[in-house]
Amino acid sequence: MIGVLGHTLRGCVRRRRGLPNLLLNRSLSGYAGMGDVIENSHKVTNLLFCSPHFPAATNYTKEYLESYPFIKVDEVALDEVSDVIHKYHICVVKNRRMDALTIAKAVQMKLIMQYGVGLDGVDIDAATKHKIKVARIPGSTTGNAASCAEMAIYFMLGLLRKQVDSCVLLQKEMEIAVKQKNLGVPVGENLFGKTVFVLGFGAIGVDLAKRLRPFGVKILATKRNWASVSMPSNDEVDYLVDKKGGQENLYEFAGEADIVVTCLSLSAETAGIIDGKFLASMKKGSLLVNIARGGLLDYSSVYQHLHSGHLGGLAMDVTWTEPFDPEDPILQFPNVLISPHIAGVTEHSYRAMAKVVGDVALQLHAGKPLEGIEIVN
Amino acid sequence: MIGVLGHTLRGCVRRRRGLPNLLLNRSLSGYAGMGDVIENSHKVTNLLFCSPHFPAATNYTKEYLESYPFIKVDEVALDEVSDVIHKYHICVVKNRRMDALTIAKAVQMKLIMQYGVGLDGVDIDAATKHKIKVARIPGSTTGNAASCAEMAIYFMLGLLRKQVDSCVLLQKEMEIAVKQKNLGVPVGENLFGKTVFVLGFGAIGVDLAKRLRPFGVKILATKRNWASVSMPSNDEVDYLVDKKGGQENLYEFAGEADIVVTCLSLSAETAGIIDGKFLASMKKGSLLVNIARGGLLDYSSVYQHLHSGHLGGLAMDVTWTEPFDPEDPILQFPNVLISPHIAGVTEHSYRAMAKVVGDVALQLHAGKPLEGIEIVN
Repeated sequence: MIGVLGHTLRGCVRRRRGLPNLLLNRSLSGYAGMGDVIENSHKVTNLLFCSPHFPAATNYTKEYLESYPFIKVDEVALDEVSDVIHKYHICVVKNRRMDALTIAKAVQMKLIMQYGVGLDGVDIDAATKHKIKVARIPGSTTGNAASCAEMAIYFMLGLLRKQVDSCVLLQKEMEIAVKQKNLGVPVGENLFGKTVFVLGFGAIGVDLAKRLRPFGVKILATKRNWASVSMPSNDEVDYLVDKKGGQENLYEFAGEADIVVTCLSLSAETAGIIDGKFLASMKKGSLLVNIARGGLLDYSSVYQHLHSGHLGGLAMDVTWTEPFDPEDPILQFPNVLISPHIAGVTEHSYRAMAKVVGDVALQLHAGKPLEGIEIVN
Repeated sequence: MIGVLGHTLRGCVRRRRGLPNLLLNRSLSGYAGMGDVIENSHKVTNLLFCSPHFPAATNYTKEYLESYPFIKVDEVALDEVSDVIHKYHICVVKNRRMDALTIAKAVQMKLIMQYGVGLDGVDIDAATKHKIKVARIPGSTTGNAASCAEMAIYFMLGLLRKQVDSCVLLQKEMEIAVKQKNLGVPVGENLFGKTVFVLGFGAIGVDLAKRLRPFGVKILATKRNWASVSMPSNDEVDYLVDKKGGQENLYEFAGEADIVVTCLSLSAETAGIIDGKFLASMKKGSLLVNIARGGLLDYSSVYQHLHSGHLGGLAMDVTWTEPFDPEDPILQFPNVLISPHIAGVTEHSYRAMAKVVGDVALQLHAGKPLEGIEIVN
């Protein structure tokens, strides 16, 4: 078996224990460039999943790899990752922050990846410095974007119907109606006729617009670069989007929309983009759906606009801290829905991503080019 | 003001109090055929809404008619309808059963109508016998069908995501996840890739298929008469439906579907159509969504198939009795969602129907032809 990683490498780590981590890491990284085939006798590639959250990611990957004993899949609690990360060659971060300090300890690491798209928790510069590749799994190929789009529609309908998801701590109007044996209340609202602002028109935004189109809505969308290669054809974009814009149209579109859906990745540019100015630009009573990242929203501005009644409803699959405190004041508003970061967590999407992770582990083990991921550094 | 109904007619009722109701009714009905313009001096047309359920129906109609004092809109509790029905010229049944005995007392009644489509509670033969017209409001023109289609998709996503609606009395998986601070659980399922059997391809079925199409599902549909005039063009039906069938394909389609949605009206033919044979034909773990009428489902068969686990989930906006007992054993299954008959109850649809009812009352008052309704007798 040809492999880039294994026992001897780990022996090497032990022998070099006295060296600073940084040097050790650089030295080891030199053993195998990404995609190089290097002959060695090492038998095991160690794959680390951080944290017991999102258990299906680990379980499905283990299942996918169960006939390959030379790929060892472990799951480690968030606070133990730092202590053991030196043993691993691939790391799937899930909701672990992968900061420079932790990365410096990842002396055998070749690849840090996400089980999905969001790499906002990874210090990519630090990884680059340590010659560790960082990658996401593009959402359009695994069904992840489609799953998130479905969830966004589910949330929109939930807010419009004044229904409630399972996670909400207050009784909502519809629950009260059933318990009190009322019929035909609450009066909901239709998606039909609404204006939806899709903030960020990447894979999720596109999949969302495709599904929203026949609901009879007007679709506004902003995107930094409409000429991006991953975009559908111009004709399709024209079919899907009634009004295209960029950063300069943010507040104008917010003011036209009945529903805003955030489909952006989190970065220094986008953090807190839904701030007081944005929320004040939204129509009174309009709705906000966040299926992307909690940090896109400015917590206190959102709280204030819920409190004043200006924001008519908030549905969020992602939150400022995760898991979110079920006692958080924002969950006390009757028009707030929350789900536990499951927009992309469907069997279809998670099995597809398990295959990507498993195949990447096998490719790395065999020294072959890595496929199915998007390396960002 | 020209009107067909009013004070003198009611005076007439008082004078004829000694006559049998039937005769009285026939005699009064003779005053004004539907659509005839009859000059009279009567000032008020009395419009009855049965029961305080579905309050928006009454409220929106009152608002629509508030500048027409000669149309009097009342709402009467279900058990008082029989005692007062003799005063009214138009009756909106809502969830009142309108049986032959009650109809016989409706001595001034010209029109019994539904605030929507379902006339299963009305004894149409008895109404015909008493020369009372019976009408529904076609769902395709008011947004009612679109509202029900949206609700069906909401329910599908709710079952697939193992989420819960507000009405359910048990904690569902997602609620537990939030309270226990878990992330990425439960693993849901996508609509993408599923096969959906739309049972009944009327206005709701068509609106549902239109919206489902871009979700990447296979759509099966049965209909008695595919050549019906209210159908979209053949090309559109071919675009919307992957496999068309009739009564003879019921069990075959049930066996192929991951999700069955009932979009049928309730009649002697369709009552209990979802029986033990149908449910046994469904795939193990498949889902059932009922946004039409509770009586389409055979209660004990549904209970048994939930109990055995063969039926993977049930979502119902309508139930066998309404309002449904919140303690009913069927609500104790964790995979059962219920909402209080609100699929069609959106502001858009209900205001559109209030306009139809209000206009019909004005037309009847003025002796003009009745528009916007479908008279079935």
